[in-house]
Amino acid sequence: MSSSAVSALERLVGHRRRFDAAFEKYFAELAGELDGARLGRFPPRCVELLAQLSLRGGKRIRIALLHEAAGLVSGAKAPGLAEAALSLELLHSHALVLDDIMDDSPMRRGGPSTYYACREDLPDHPQAALGLAMMVGDLAGFLALRVLSRADLPADRRQAMIDVQLGVSTDTVIGQVLDLERDVDPSADGDDGLLAAVCEYKTSRYSILGPMRLGLLAAGQDPMEHEESLHRYARLAGLSGQLRDDYLDLFGDPDLTGKPRGADLRAGRHTSLTRELLAVTGGDDHDTVKAGLGDPHCTPRTIDRIRDIAHRHDVHTRLQTTIDRYAHDAAAEAASWHRHWNSEAVALFEQLPLWNTRRTR
Amino acid sequence: MSSSAVSALERLVGHRRRFDAAFEKYFAELAGELDGARLGRFPPRCVELLAQLSLRGGKRIRIALLHEAAGLVSGAKAPGLAEAALSLELLHSHALVLDDIMDDSPMRRGGPSTYYACREDLPDHPQAALGLAMMVGDLAGFLALRVLSRADLPADRRQAMIDVQLGVSTDTVIGQVLDLERDVDPSADGDDGLLAAVCEYKTSRYSILGPMRLGLLAAGQDPMEHEESLHRYARLAGLSGQLRDDYLDLFGDPDLTGKPRGADLRAGRHTSLTRELLAVTGGDDHDTVKAGLGDPHCTPRTIDRIRDIAHRHDVHTRLQTTIDRYAHDAAAEAASWHRHWNSEAVALFEQLPLWNTRRTR
Repeated sequence: MSSSAVSALERLVGHRRRFDAAFEKYFAELAGELDGARLGRFPPRCVELLAQLSLRGGKRIRIALLHEAAGLVSGAKAPGLAEAALSLELLHSHALVLDDIMDDSPMRRGGPSTYYACREDLPDHPQAALGLAMMVGDLAGFLALRVLSRADLPADRRQAMIDVQLGVSTDTVIGQVLDLERDVDPSADGDDGLLAAVCEYKTSRYSILGPMRLGLLAAGQDPMEHEESLHRYARLAGLSGQLRDDYLDLFGDPDLTGKPRGADLRAGRHTSLTRELLAVTGGDDHDTVKAGLGDPHCTPRTIDRIRDIAHRHDVHTRLQTTIDRYAHDAAAEAASWHRHWNSEAVALFEQLPLWNTRRTR
Repeated sequence: MSSSAVSALERLVGHRRRFDAAFEKYFAELAGELDGARLGRFPPRCVELLAQLSLRGGKRIRIALLHEAAGLVSGAKAPGLAEAALSLELLHSHALVLDDIMDDSPMRRGGPSTYYACREDLPDHPQAALGLAMMVGDLAGFLALRVLSRADLPADRRQAMIDVQLGVSTDTVIGQVLDLERDVDPSADGDDGLLAAVCEYKTSRYSILGPMRLGLLAAGQDPMEHEESLHRYARLAGLSGQLRDDYLDLFGDPDLTGKPRGADLRAGRHTSLTRELLAVTGGDDHDTVKAGLGDPHCTPRTIDRIRDIAHRHDVHTRLQTTIDRYAHDAAAEAASWHRHWNSEAVALFEQLPLWNTRRTR
């Protein structure tokens, strides 16, 4: 690895470490500062559940993008970055809590999902457990905006940041709802148009474009001046990242991904991988894939068989080629930023999609 | 009824009629203006479900309070009132969608709840139906803030309105969560402290104080200058209104309330009424009440028996006396506003809690 790549990685680790400390401080203070959070037993538990999920980490990729996007313009610490970082991760917690209710997922980030933690709290009251989990998610969404609304910033910049997060929020609803549609009625998506839209609304805008816009705003740059290029980068990097997720679901190492292989298959998710598998197979192979898709009881052995089928049809190679192609196109887009932005930060945006192509978790 | 009361009622009807027209226009334009709302089938359905619930009405009491609060200061149309009105009712739709999921309620406002409408859309996909309903609620919450964020107002006023709605939102989460706690573990609330807190967070701040603050802000008045009196009014009027709801659940006319008697009882809700019933009865009467509370299959005949028990113990008279007392205290608080605010609007705030004491739906 080149020395500039090493220093970029060190920067990323630093962003994460500093953010984790700030996030811990935020939650330590929240219980005392949020009106009513100390009443009774459930409100403190609600805040605690949100803190537990939020502080259990994740890759904090949005935090890296936020800070590096600010670094495109100014090396110094930009005002509002701290609040934007909290807002991004609170909004992410909001999405995760809701996702896990919608998918009935027991686990998240190596611990119980918020929904299942609530069900464990209230084993005799399943409806109240659902309600409590929904309220944890609801709280996270409003706190994500409150933290920006209270930021000590010039009014127009604060307003622009709130607008970014509100835009991302409604985009994510659209993406989620399209994703539900695809899983309920995969035949409707004959030409992959919905699949691309889901990635655009749920991944590219949410995980890449939004954080970058906030970082630029904090650094005093209007992201609309470079909207087209930023959006293209986000779309390409988002597609590459989404496809790598799909890839890891079947070809990843469970010890590294932290989840069993074939989760998408069992859940009946029509990802680009499962679509390709259905498209290129025939006869018994096709039947095996079709039977496994959406069968929650599909055994690890059957998943292994499906993986072998995929290997035999070279699905993994073709998928990886597409992942690489999108990543290189994203990197090429970022390379055009050297003209007007800080080269060290630009280099990181070139590097990120390429790293992603070999990501193992 | 006095002529001033008649003219006040006419004003209220006018607020509602104008708002309903504006709300219809908002939804007619939303599908074309919300990014992605026309993709596929589910996103347009999501917007449609939100519009259906939102436009099916309700009493629009918050809209009346908003406009009359602005009228306390200025008779003219205040800038931002229209957006604040949309925000209030969108946030209310958000709360209703979530409530009906949490309570598993099939009906709302004389039609199917959003959750049940989604289940009817997707009879073979209960988890996707839950997800779709949750996303309708999520969308409503973010739109409630977006409509303010885009209001053409001075930055500080827009910011203050957003802060009001964010405060109301987190307050409501606290109130909801406390309400869940009371129903799960009613014994914990030995001294009615939680019951009062639920009313404060879920009703007084949400339905009364929030709309009044927004109305004053729109009229250019800082609500913090009169915070204490406004808050006291909201608390008293909120308590009176909440108790009247509890009263109507057992003593109301189902033809007027639009729902069968004893819904709170069947759902096991520990309202002030059910608490009083348990406290003043003994022997067989107590056992009847206790057996009915939380029994979803409790028959209308048993509900009638419980109502007779309540009548025999004069529960209805005592409850109504408390309703009247709070209402008169609220009216007295409003009367003090004649010193500094527009008398016609003040008179309405005096009148509202008194009307509420005889409300039939």
